[in-house]
Amino acid sequence: MFTITELSNERINSIVTEALAFANGKSAKIEGEVFCSNLFFEDSTRTKTSFDIAERKLGLQVVPFDASNSSVNKGESLYDTVKTIESLGVNLVVIRDKKDRYFDELNDIKIPIINGGDGTGNHPSQCMLDLMTIYQEFGKFEGLKIGIVGDVKHSRVANSNAEALRRLGAKVYFSGPEQWFDEGALINGTYLSVDEMIKDVDVLMLLRIQHERHDAKMSFSASEYHRKYGLTKEREKAMKKEAIIMHPAPINRGVEIDDDLVECERSRVFKQMQNGVFARMAILKEALEKEGYTFK
Amino acid sequence: MFTITELSNERINSIVTEALAFANGKSAKIEGEVFCSNLFFEDSTRTKTSFDIAERKLGLQVVPFDASNSSVNKGESLYDTVKTIESLGVNLVVIRDKKDRYFDELNDIKIPIINGGDGTGNHPSQCMLDLMTIYQEFGKFEGLKIGIVGDVKHSRVANSNAEALRRLGAKVYFSGPEQWFDEGALINGTYLSVDEMIKDVDVLMLLRIQHERHDAKMSFSASEYHRKYGLTKEREKAMKKEAIIMHPAPINRGVEIDDDLVECERSRVFKQMQNGVFARMAILKEALEKEGYTFK
Amino acid sequence: MFTITELSNERINSIVTEALAFANGKSAKIEGEVFCSNLFFEDSTRTKTSFDIAERKLGLQVVPFDASNSSVNKGESLYDTVKTIESLGVNLVVIRDKKDRYFDELNDIKIPIINGGDGTGNHPSQCMLDLMTIYQEFGKFEGLKIGIVGDVKHSRVANSNAEALRRLGAKVYFSGPEQWFDEGALINGTYLSVDEMIKDVDVLMLLRIQHERHDAKMSFSASEYHRKYGLTKEREKAMKKEAIIMHPAPINRGVEIDDDLVECERSRVFKQMQNGVFARMAILKEALEKEGYTFK
Repeated sequence: MFTITELSNERINSIVTEALAFANGKSAKIEGEVFCSNLFFEDSTRTKTSFDIAERKLGLQVVPFDASNSSVNKGESLYDTVKTIESLGVNLVVIRDKKDRYFDELNDIKIPIINGGDGTGNHPSQCMLDLMTIYQEFGKFEGLKIGIVGDVKHSRVANSNAEALRRLGAKVYFSGPEQWFDEGALINGTYLSVDEMIKDVDVLMLLRIQHERHDAKMSFSASEYHRKYGLTKEREKAMKKEAIIMHPAPINRGVEIDDDLVECERSRVFKQMQNGVFARMAILKEALEKEGYTFK
Repeated sequence: MFTITELSNERINSIVTEALAFANGKSAKIEGEVFCSNLFFEDSTRTKTSFDIAERKLGLQVVPFDASNSSVNKGESLYDTVKTIESLGVNLVVIRDKKDRYFDELNDIKIPIINGGDGTGNHPSQCMLDLMTIYQEFGKFEGLKIGIVGDVKHSRVANSNAEALRRLGAKVYFSGPEQWFDEGALINGTYLSVDEMIKDVDVLMLLRIQHERHDAKMSFSASEYHRKYGLTKEREKAMKKEAIIMHPAPINRGVEIDDDLVECERSRVFKQMQNGVFARMAILKEALEKEGYTFK
Repeated sequence: MFTITELSNERINSIVTEALAFANGKSAKIEGEVFCSNLFFEDSTRTKTSFDIAERKLGLQVVPFDASNSSVNKGESLYDTVKTIESLGVNLVVIRDKKDRYFDELNDIKIPIINGGDGTGNHPSQCMLDLMTIYQEFGKFEGLKIGIVGDVKHSRVANSNAEALRRLGAKVYFSGPEQWFDEGALINGTYLSVDEMIKDVDVLMLLRIQHERHDAKMSFSASEYHRKYGLTKEREKAMKKEAIIMHPAPINRGVEIDDDLVECERSRVFKQMQNGVFARMAILKEALEKEGYTFK
């Protein structure tokens, strides 16, 4: 699985359903001895650990791979590295790489590849866990109002989510510093001010401020961002009774969201992490079943 | 388990007894699928590997965690990182951190936390393995004479050991460069010169010289330290017949102890490492049983 | 196992036979709980991962070891580090180190040590997988003509292979830049020009150009090397019908070998990686059986 775009609504629904089954206690163990490896060429402890646990829960053997010491750093191509891992007998890989659509050069790899995030493009497993968290709450996507606040244009998560949610019948709104929005960022939703958006949405998705990306063009401080676009205590009070708050983490406390709200009643931030393992189990299981592996 | 201070004598005795049972061949495997992770934000291959093996011997699934790539380095708080690991479904964590009493900010974490060492404060699993090694040798603590040589003030190990041994009825003596001792360092024992101490003690615990900490104030060279305070071949001959030598390792050979004595008959240096796995098994098992997990 | 020199022809044949059995689907699982660890003080993801998978396939528990954080970097001797790992209860170690014949200082270690490569000296597991790949193809060593192209003098692989193949009855030829060859490099074979060699050999072994080692003395560019000594499309056409191409990887595509030939019909490059796991299984099993461990 590389992108959300390639997934039909049916397939999304099927993965969400399986993920919810895992969340509700279903277990599945692969039959036989199956090896997988997580090739993370960009740091992401959270996503890597989530995949690692999902793989172990499915009974896979996880072969460690240290990207920082790999031959890729000595100039070997990604293709040759993955082909090597495949030759060594690994049966499935999860890959995260800084390069957009890195998977386009991996067509000749025969084992399943799960996209753990590519550049600023796609992050389908994060998207699936977000969808699952929303469905778990509301039992549907159709007709929901979703607000996404932050740098939509540079966010893997926001792009995938907005596209999938729109296709599944939800209405998507965006907010954040206006200079971050152009036509490209508004394909799947409409721009609103934070205060207009907040009182109307069922789901408020806050994106992480990528200090590392914006240092140059960010014309405002962290506290200014919080005051203008962040979820303050006042704004939280304006939200609808059943509305929930989501954030892909790691959170900049006091920037995207008030410190005290991170674990408030309507926050699903840590629930998302919990769901991430179940969503990834569903994604891995689907990929392995397609290859003929069976589970008991 | 965070500190030795919090452990009653009864609990210490119970853990030592269980650790000795493991050393004598007892095995225990946890029932069900239980995940743990070792979050070492300060390097310590020895302690980390010891916990890792203890965990595997108990049948736990060890989820790798690479602190150097974690979000903690991107400014995430320790609390948020540990809360994330908990949310991902990890059932127990071992933590080592440079910060004294890092665990004070982790009160809201629900899964058991084992202290793998904090700052210069506590290192309870090292203490338990030292106590176990002494008990294994003498069958008691009461009335034993223990000599500790080195920078007691800055040593996690020395502080915990001295406190526990005193409480368990042993008599503790300290030695080393006098400028390293002040009132704070002498709460649990009495200062003696190395040569006075050495002929009288049942257990001689040598501490590692922390070159990194003393470079500035160390007014003597490594060979000078060895001559004045180290265990030379001459001093070893002055020891009582049944007395043993201990060292937490890694050893500076020829500094704290003569190269040829590291594996001499009365040295328990590598025995301590071996015991470390059993002591940690006992600590982990106690923590897990308290949570309702069972072993077979 | 430290060097190929210490292996009798009988032992080589026995390991190759076992490795081929594994390649043909034989499985072997160790009885009881056995721990191993891969101590790689020099980076080599490929070799480390290959050992890791071989170990798991044999049912060993692989204890992670991060050399970059180990006490060796704080001045601890290799002996003390390995003795520590042994004391912690690890039953077998694979070691790779930059130092030639590092194993000479490890005589007092009681657990089996498998050499994963030392300095520029020995790399016996790579040698065994190469021998296995050749035997798999031709069913014999006697009478085969083997051509090795590259910096034989500085190559662990080339030295071990040339010695073993000569002893097993093959005829070895070397080629590459003449300044890389002196008497020391020609003990086990004869120098030929690439074009003379290529039309005559059954096996063409290409060595990796070690840019890092030759930068100073390399008086030719990568493309010049390719043209003068590399396997170009023209040269490949001059090879005998049944002849095969081997390379220890990672490959510098377009230098040692034309990009399009890496996966050509007569290339065994990825087959070698696949065989590496089976060769290492055979090596590990032999070492463990010698210690009294049994497999089912």
